[in-house]
Amino acid sequence: MDKYNLQFWFSYGSTYTYLSVARIESLALAHGITVTWHPFSVKEITRQYGMPKGPFGSHEPKRRYMWRDLERRARQHQLPYQKPQQYPVDYTQTALAGMVAATEGWIAPYTVSIFHRNFAQQQPIGSPGNLEAVLTELGQDVEAVLHSASLPSTTQALEENTEQAKRLGIFGSPSFIADGELFWGDDRLDDAIQWLRRNAKTN
Amino acid sequence: MDKYNLQFWFSYGSTYTYLSVARIESLALAHGITVTWHPFSVKEITRQYGMPKGPFGSHEPKRRYMWRDLERRARQHQLPYQKPQQYPVDYTQTALAGMVAATEGWIAPYTVSIFHRNFAQQQPIGSPGNLEAVLTELGQDVEAVLHSASLPSTTQALEENTEQAKRLGIFGSPSFIADGELFWGDDRLDDAIQWLRRNAKTN
Repeated sequence: MDKYNLQFWFSYGSTYTYLSVARIESLALAHGITVTWHPFSVKEITRQYGMPKGPFGSHEPKRRYMWRDLERRARQHQLPYQKPQQYPVDYTQTALAGMVAATEGWIAPYTVSIFHRNFAQQQPIGSPGNLEAVLTELGQDVEAVLHSASLPSTTQALEENTEQAKRLGIFGSPSFIADGELFWGDDRLDDAIQWLRRNAKTN
Repeated sequence: MDKYNLQFWFSYGSTYTYLSVARIESLALAHGITVTWHPFSVKEITRQYGMPKGPFGSHEPKRRYMWRDLERRARQHQLPYQKPQQYPVDYTQTALAGMVAATEGWIAPYTVSIFHRNFAQQQPIGSPGNLEAVLTELGQDVEAVLHSASLPSTTQALEENTEQAKRLGIFGSPSFIADGELFWGDDRLDDAIQWLRRNAKTN
């Protein structure tokens, strides 16, 4: 494995993941590293572990804090942000199209666009026409992608990613693997990059 | 309220709180702000909300990650660290003595010492003689403090702190209130300080 490669594990239904999706490629460029994008289903993992649903379960104070913190962090990183009116969202088809995008090599721009619409443009993941609009913008053949996304093998590939994430000790999104070391949360992205760079130099 | 004052809300049973306890006074000094220390029972709040017990519930991967992350963060901040052999700990009496310390004005050195022993010296909170040793080091009258800690009014004062924390929207430890704004987690301490300084200047 390329010792300057950072693994980025993420789910489309995750809120804080927006911050990493929007930042990771420019950060990687600035630090001379590459990123591989690994979609998985964090919902499936938390279900298997019996962990609370959603980023903070169903507890109002924690949920209220999360939205406020997300807004503050977006502002801090100078990212556009509008609180989504809809949450949670149905991201099943979006994630499956993401698997197609991963296979075909356009997962980064696809995912950036999906998250940007959801967290900055009030165009929720899973809303009618949203996925098609993103695919069209990216110059993809909408019918062909939706067909590939609907194949059982695509669902299976997503499930395999989720199993692999679980084997890596991942339990939340976003997560990063830097030289075998797991970092969880957008607020550990910089630490993960530093870890990778330091270890790459000494290995 | 002093506009350069940061409220520090914490529980003695919390792991990541060690990082804030060890750093907050020197950070405050460097940034020209003051800190007020507010012990409360995070366990009581999470119990009331029906949230998972412990910092990460009982899910092994998340717990394993937390210990690793705590160690990395301690190292990053150049803080001494040895993984405690015992967790969780019974911090009831330690917290009650903390309330006495808060009333009498020696809560900062007391709490720093308690956490330092627990996370750097394998002298767990709640272990026999630990509290007495800390009080002796601080030049306190051990008998008198333990007596004050055992009074119903001290338990009541801790409960009132916990109720106040809940009213402020606090659900975890460490938490910080900067100019009315809530920040949760040691990894938000710097953000909280920046928030306070920025708002103090413009108000």
